[in-house]
Formats: sequence, structure tokens, C-alpha cells
Amino acid sequence: MQNWGRTRRFLIYPAVNFLNNRRSNPIAANPVFNSAFGLANHRDSPLYSESEKSNLHTCFHSLRDKVVETGIRSAIRFQHRGFGSDATKIQRNPLFSTLNSEDISYFKGVLGEKNVIQDEERLLTANTDWMHKYRGSSKLLLQPRSTEEVVINVSLMNNIISFDKVSGILVCEAGCILENLITFLDTQGYIMPLDLGAKGSSQIGGNVSTNAGGLRLVRYGSLHGNVLGLEVVLANGDVLDMLGTLRKDNTGYDLKHLFIGSEGSLGIVTKVSILTPPKLSAVNVAFLACKDYFSCQKLLVEAKWKLGEILSAFEFLDNLAMDLVLNHLEGVRNPLPPSLHSFYVLIETTGSDEAYSKEKLEAFLLHAMGAGLITDGALAQDINQASSFWLIREGLPEALMKAGAVYKYDLSLPIENMYNLVEEMRIRLGESATVVAYGHLGDGNLHLNISTPQYEDKILAQIEPYVYEWTSKHRGSISAEHGLGLMKANEIFYSKPTNVVHLMGSIKKALDPKGILNPYKVLPHSLSSSS
Amino acid sequence: MQNWGRTRRFLIYPAVNFLNNRRSNPIAANPVFNSAFGLANHRDSPLYSESEKSNLHTCFHSLRDKVVETGIRSAIRFQHRGFGSDATKIQRNPLFSTLNSEDISYFKGVLGEKNVIQDEERLLTANTDWMHKYRGSSKLLLQPRSTEEVVINVSLMNNIISFDKVSGILVCEAGCILENLITFLDTQGYIMPLDLGAKGSSQIGGNVSTNAGGLRLVRYGSLHGNVLGLEVVLANGDVLDMLGTLRKDNTGYDLKHLFIGSEGSLGIVTKVSILTPPKLSAVNVAFLACKDYFSCQKLLVEAKWKLGEILSAFEFLDNLAMDLVLNHLEGVRNPLPPSLHSFYVLIETTGSDEAYSKEKLEAFLLHAMGAGLITDGALAQDINQASSFWLIREGLPEALMKAGAVYKYDLSLPIENMYNLVEEMRIRLGESATVVAYGHLGDGNLHLNISTPQYEDKILAQIEPYVYEWTSKHRGSISAEHGLGLMKANEIFYSKPTNVVHLMGSIKKALDPKGILNPYKVLPHSLSSSS
Repeated sequence: MQNWGRTRRFLIYPAVNFLNNRRSNPIAANPVFNSAFGLANHRDSPLYSESEKSNLHTCFHSLRDKVVETGIRSAIRFQHRGFGSDATKIQRNPLFSTLNSEDISYFKGVLGEKNVIQDEERLLTANTDWMHKYRGSSKLLLQPRSTEEVVINVSLMNNIISFDKVSGILVCEAGCILENLITFLDTQGYIMPLDLGAKGSSQIGGNVSTNAGGLRLVRYGSLHGNVLGLEVVLANGDVLDMLGTLRKDNTGYDLKHLFIGSEGSLGIVTKVSILTPPKLSAVNVAFLACKDYFSCQKLLVEAKWKLGEILSAFEFLDNLAMDLVLNHLEGVRNPLPPSLHSFYVLIETTGSDEAYSKEKLEAFLLHAMGAGLITDGALAQDINQASSFWLIREGLPEALMKAGAVYKYDLSLPIENMYNLVEEMRIRLGESATVVAYGHLGDGNLHLNISTPQYEDKILAQIEPYVYEWTSKHRGSISAEHGLGLMKANEIFYSKPTNVVHLMGSIKKALDPKGILNPYKVLPHSLSSSS
Repeated sequence: MQNWGRTRRFLIYPAVNFLNNRRSNPIAANPVFNSAFGLANHRDSPLYSESEKSNLHTCFHSLRDKVVETGIRSAIRFQHRGFGSDATKIQRNPLFSTLNSEDISYFKGVLGEKNVIQDEERLLTANTDWMHKYRGSSKLLLQPRSTEEVVINVSLMNNIISFDKVSGILVCEAGCILENLITFLDTQGYIMPLDLGAKGSSQIGGNVSTNAGGLRLVRYGSLHGNVLGLEVVLANGDVLDMLGTLRKDNTGYDLKHLFIGSEGSLGIVTKVSILTPPKLSAVNVAFLACKDYFSCQKLLVEAKWKLGEILSAFEFLDNLAMDLVLNHLEGVRNPLPPSLHSFYVLIETTGSDEAYSKEKLEAFLLHAMGAGLITDGALAQDINQASSFWLIREGLPEALMKAGAVYKYDLSLPIENMYNLVEEMRIRLGESATVVAYGHLGDGNLHLNISTPQYEDKILAQIEPYVYEWTSKHRGSISAEHGLGLMKANEIFYSKPTNVVHLMGSIKKALDPKGILNPYKVLPHSLSSSS
């Protein structure tokens, strides 16, 4: 209590609806939101994924070569090296036919001249993932304007179809940008149940296809709980109308869940119905220091009970993560005076009553300081302070990219054991690398990042498969929220038993017998090649 | 405001953890929790569902005949007539073999003598559903004690496997009684995210298999959001270990959702991992009167904003429902003085802070009265009052059964249109029936009940298919939370398009090619008979 009294940093601010504005970091928390769509081509001649590479080292060089070849000089320099695997180069499925001028004419007939894109620069953008690590070889980009026209890029399908102010149920097309939906709902007194750093560019169809997690999951749960309905186009062109707008519907198997998180490999999401929570405007953010990981855990448990219904985020980072963001990101400062803090926790509360929320959070912080769970802390005084606290946590991916090469892992682990992995990796790698940890502690989601001056195969060999094996041993997930994509398709067995993966394969075969939807992704190559 | 001051019924009570005790009504809100398991028989000789009937009229008589035949005199009298359909008698699948003494010896070898039940009385209980409307013809009841031994009755598989106090994640066997889990969690400071009238008898495996909704859905969402993992035994005996204990896991298709709500027809749930919310002990209950349905809707919207994070139930009933419960259930009284109220709303709040929750609810009620949204109301003063308020709402199914025959419908509808159906039915049926409406307004779930002195075919013909057609036209669900079972299997097309149902059929065929799991249920007979 005395300590608490002495620190004068716990100032209260009048939270004025900064919920939707507090973050504008362009770095995506999830790399695949926009690339989640594969393609359904009624003539079975896919235009995509000709020779994607999953060996990143190879990819890195060959991509630079290609960039030179194609004469595009503005190529992004690859400072960072992502979460890698030793998977071999993908061979194009020989059953796939190749694009010819007849196909192009056909598509122009369906979509109109201007929605069939062959411009090299636009193709390069569409073929490249957000981290600039992978590059497809598609020669054509199709932009449908309606479900009937679908395939591939749904960015022109960006209409809000309906919103019910009583139930809070929103129905929209898949190409709606998440941030636009957030802005629209704000005028209606509602919010989206998910929020991401990448909201400015990611589309709701991609969010659903990748089962995006993000910053509100601890409060509002996953998309499996919030998505009420989907319209999906299957590989054979069939349109599945599962676009229910009901909170409860027990009529048969709830097939929409197959498409949530299947990364576009079972069908293309074209419309989404989603339950949105009412907007509660009393938001407070505290930035706290803890002396050890055990204190962070205890703080979480206490917060769940004592903050209860107003807790909306519980994020953590360790001191190496803090150093990194302070050293590499401009305009970021530690709100707490320099000291030997081992861990930092960001707590956000959201409620319907400003005075009460403030009072409750303050009482909780006093209690936590009295109990020795936190050693210092600051309570945002205004929206700018709150944004600056969030910037520390959200600036981490960018800071890591600026620091050099980075090996990234997105793991779910039992909260109790989570940080043991970080400590083991530090011992294992010694001076050769900086092991940085942060993540959504409230969800048990660790973002483990290993930063080195430059990429080295021998460092990768020390990390993998060790990290995957460790995660598997502790019944964790090797991909908490980012999905498997191409890179981790073969690593699925670390998190799923063989017979479960085989059942996934059967379902893939039933829905997409020719394997034309987002090929080579999600399922292990052994399964996809056999089809 | 003046009105409010005059009514002295808004008394505050110190809510002393009555959350888990407030209801003990034995009438289940969901009829199929315990009957959700079909059977997987590795020798392909099912013991169940020989000749279940979906024509209730036939069923009603034939069941009485059988009861006489078997000499069991304590048979329950069938006062009520349930939600009916004109579906014809089910023919036993001729591919199924019949039970012989060799089978019985085999099962005794596997499960032990005492877990192979042939006792007539125990078989009668197991063959009869909770409403005593359907009766199976199984000659044998098997009670496995472990996943390896499964199938059919999992009541002996009732162990809690683990509970993580930091994350709130519970792992248990499928046979655990919901109420026992609630009691266990109470000692740990957590609650189950679902609660039902039938908690004293329903098992968690059945809750999951039927995607039980219940009373906490408005606050904590559906089981698709809360169930983190399942262990499932397939028709071929294969055990699928999807028993993750992680909030986030994006490694491949999330297949557990196929089994949530599939009524045991795709596999048998043997273990469940579920996220449990922290227990918040400040519970308040108000019982309110509204002059019309529009006011109920407006009250809901206001409650979502003004009560926000503490709103935990929003139930409604109309004046005919109130009359019915007052006339047929002993010990129930209207907490509001007799007056011409058209609608009643029960609001429950749950929060972490007693004083604040009370204050907030009172302020909201004052506001609602001032705005003319409610015409009268009472705030429970103690746990007994709160229980008596809940008893009105939860006593309705029992009161309906006592009142005579009843045609029951469990519908999801857009909240805006919901009550139009009730009014249309009253016009349609005139004096011949009493149309009673109540339900989970916060979830858009209407329990439409049509009460008559005795069952009549011509009344059924006026109700069906009209109710289903009306629901379909408004994109509602003909089964919000009760499932399709045998009775509504053929009605699935009212809520799902043909190609979606056919895809369900493909999945059924892939997982259970011989159709031995809970046969004749969920999917339309046209699909199941073709397999």
C-alpha cells in the first residue's frame, strides 16, 4: 500500500472512446488474413501456387533473383528470417493444367475486362505474403463482384448486407475490411468481437478463414463462438448457404465450423454473419511490472476474479522484449522508471460505467501491489497514454524485423509451463541469439521470437524441431492463431494425432476432390500429394 | 420516476451465492441430453432403435399397449401430447443384425457381468425419453467404464481428469453429471459456462452432443465457443484424441465442432475439455412487466448497453404463460399485483461486486420505468425471492404438461418478428387452443407452446407445417436448442438448404458408413435409408 502511495504514476484518465482508435500499427498480428483464399476454378486450371517454396533459405535467394529478373527494383530487402522449416520445395501438382489465352478470354467474359488483372506490379503484390517471405507465381488476378462470379480475390465484395440493432447481428460480404466494419458498428453502438493490428487491411472473409484470434479473444472468445453463419463457394462451384442470423440453431451438423480456420482449403467464404457485442465505452489501460513469471500468473488469476466482467486484455512481455522495442522503435518509451523489472503486463478493462471501472481497476492495482504481485505500474491518464502503452506491446513484431533476422513461433501452451520453454531456449542458444517472449497471456498464447544479427542454418537446427517437440510434449499447439499455411503444413503431427489428420484429409477429399483450393497448404504434403 | 417511487417492490437483497442453487426444477429444458449417444458396435450388430416411432399418436397408443404387455404397471400416464409430426413409422434397417446370446457373452467378457444390463425395468427407463413420448426396443444396456470399452451408456465414466486453476480449463469424462461439475467448480472459484433445468440428471457428454443452450448462453455463448477439446469414439472403434486444453489452436480443421450438436450420430463423446469462467458472486434478479412486445425488445437493447458486462439472463413470458403457471403449479405466485400486464421479463445480472451490481441494476430499472419501457417490477430481496422468480419461468414446461395436451416448438427467430408468429397462431387456432409463449429473448429463442385439453389430429394439421413454413420464411430455425432427433429429422429442409443437408449426409457416410450411430436421427430418412 505504501509503495502504491509512493508511485504517482497511477493516474486516471477519462476514457473517451479510444477503443477503436487506440492502435494503428500496420504490422499484422496474423500473417495470412488476406491470403486465406485459395481458388475455385470451374475449369480446373488453377492460376496460383505454381512453385511456392517452403524452404525459406532457398525462397529468400530465389525471390531476390526473380525480383531482379522481372526488373522490379523496388523489391523489399529481407532483413528478417521468419519461422522456418526444412520442408523441401513444393512441386506443382502435375494434374493442374496451365493458363492459356482461352482461359483469359473466358474470365474476361465472366468478370469484365477490368476485373481480370494481368498487370505485373499488381500481381507481384498479390503473389507476395505480408512478411515478404513467400511468393506465388500466379499470372492472373480475378476480382469477382458477387458470389456467382467468385473466385480468389473478394476485395470488391465489400458490402454490409444487414445489421440488426436489437440482436447486434451483422451480415456482410467477405471482402469487407475489418476496420470499416468496426467504424460502421461504432455508429450503431456495437463493436466487432475481434480486433487485430492488421485491421486496416485484413478482410472479414480472411479473418474467418484463418480463425483470427487477436486482442479481444480473452473477452469475447473465438470466431467459432461469434460467427453465426457463412456463405461458402465450394471447389465445384456449389454455393453453400449457411448464412444463418441466429444465435441458436440445432438443425443438423454445424458445418460452418469446417470453414472457420481451414485457410480457404475447403471452400471460399463469400458472406459472413457475426454476432457483435454492444460497445462499452469505459476503457482503462494499466502498464505493470512483475518481478517474476509466477507473479504474472498469479496476477492473471486475481484479475479474472477481481476485475471479472470488465477484463478485456491481459498481455505480457519480458524485459528482453522491452529492451528490443525501446532500441528499435522510434517514439516508444517505457512508462515505468528504469529498474530491474523482469516482466511487464498490460491490462485493459472495458465496461459500461466510467467511474466504476476506474475505481475497480484502481482498487485491484492497490491490492496487487499490496500482495507483492506487481512491483510498479502506471495507469493511462488519457487516450494518448493508453495508445503509447499499447504501442509497446504491438510494436514488437516491427521492432523484431528491424533488429535483424528473426525466427518466429506462435505457440499455445499451458500457462504454467509456458515460460519454461523461453528459459530453455536461452540456455540452448547461449550468446548466439536473443530469445524474446511476449503474447496473449490471458489466452495461453506465447509469441516466442528468436532474434539474431543474420539468418543461419545452424541456429535454425538448434531451434527446430526442438521447439515443436517441446510444444508437442506439453500438449501445446504449434500454431495458436497464425495457422499452418505452407510452412507448417508438414508439422501438423506435432499438434494433432495421425488419425485426426487423416480424417481432415478425408474431409478435404470430400469437399475438394481435385485439390484445387489453396493447394499445398494446411494438410501435410503426404496427404495432398496422394489425392 | 414517480411510479417507481410508489411501487415499493424493488427491494434489494444481499445476493449470497445462490447462483448454483437457485433452481432445482427437475423438468429439463432440453429433452435429449441423456439420449444423445447412439452406439458403436465393433461387430456391427446394434442393439438399439429397432422400431422407434416418429408418429406420436401411434407411439402414444402402442407404448401403452407395450407397457401392458410387459406387465409394468407403474407406467407414466400420457397427459400431454408433444410437438408432433406426421412422419411415418420407422422401419428397422434390414442390414442391421439382431442380438443373440453370443453377442451377450461377448459383451460380458469385455465389460464384466454387472455392466451388461438385461433387467426389464432398467431397460424400460433407458429406452424411454424424458417426456415419455418415444420408446426404443433395446434388449441390452451396456455400461462401459473407460474409453476402450465404449459404447452407449457412459454414466460410469464420470471422473474429473484435471482442472487448471490459472486458465479455468476443466477436463472430464463424458458421464459427469452437469450439476456435479458445477459443484466441483464452485470449490475452485469457477462456474460452468452452461446451466440447465436438467443439470441434476444430464451428462456433459450429452450436453456437448446436443449443443445444449440453456440459461447462460446470453452471457457465455454456445458450447462451440466454450468446448476446447473432445475425445470421440467413431463408429469403427477408432478413438479420436482432439482433447486439447488450449484456448487457441489453429492447426488444421477444427473437427471437434462436427461432434458438438450432432446428437451422437457421428461419434460418441467420451471426454470433454471446457473453458470455465470465473465465478462472480454478485447475482441479482428482477421480475418486470411490459405493456407490449415492442417494449420488451427495447428493454433488451437498453439492457445490453446499460447493464452491459453484468447482464446474464434476459427471459420473457407472456400473460397467458403466466396464467398457466399460476393455475397449474403449486407454490408459484406472481410477484407483481394483479393487473393487465401483457408481458413479463426476468433479468438477471452477475458481477464481481455486490454494491456496484445492485446500484447499476437499480439505476437501470429506474431509467426503464421513467422511459415507459416497464410498467411494474420487483427486485428479489433474497435468494428465496430470486428462486421464486426463476420458478415462474422454469416451471412452465411442467405447468404445460399438467394443463393437458401440448404441441411444443423450439424456434429461433429474428427478435423483431418473433411474437408475430404467436399472434398469428392465436388467430389461426381461435378458441380451440391456448397459445403460450416464453423463452430466451436475449438469444432470439422462442418456446412456442400450444395447449389443448386433449390431443387432436385436426389441431396438429392447423399447426404443422404452418409453423415450420413460417419459421423458414423468416430464416429462423425449427430447432433452436433441442435438436432434430427422430421427430424433426425430416423437417431439416425448413432450416437448411438441400445441398447443405446433402453435405451433412456425405460427412455422415464418411464417418459412419454403416449408419450404426444413433440411427434414424438428425438426417432425413431419405438420406439415411439410401446409405
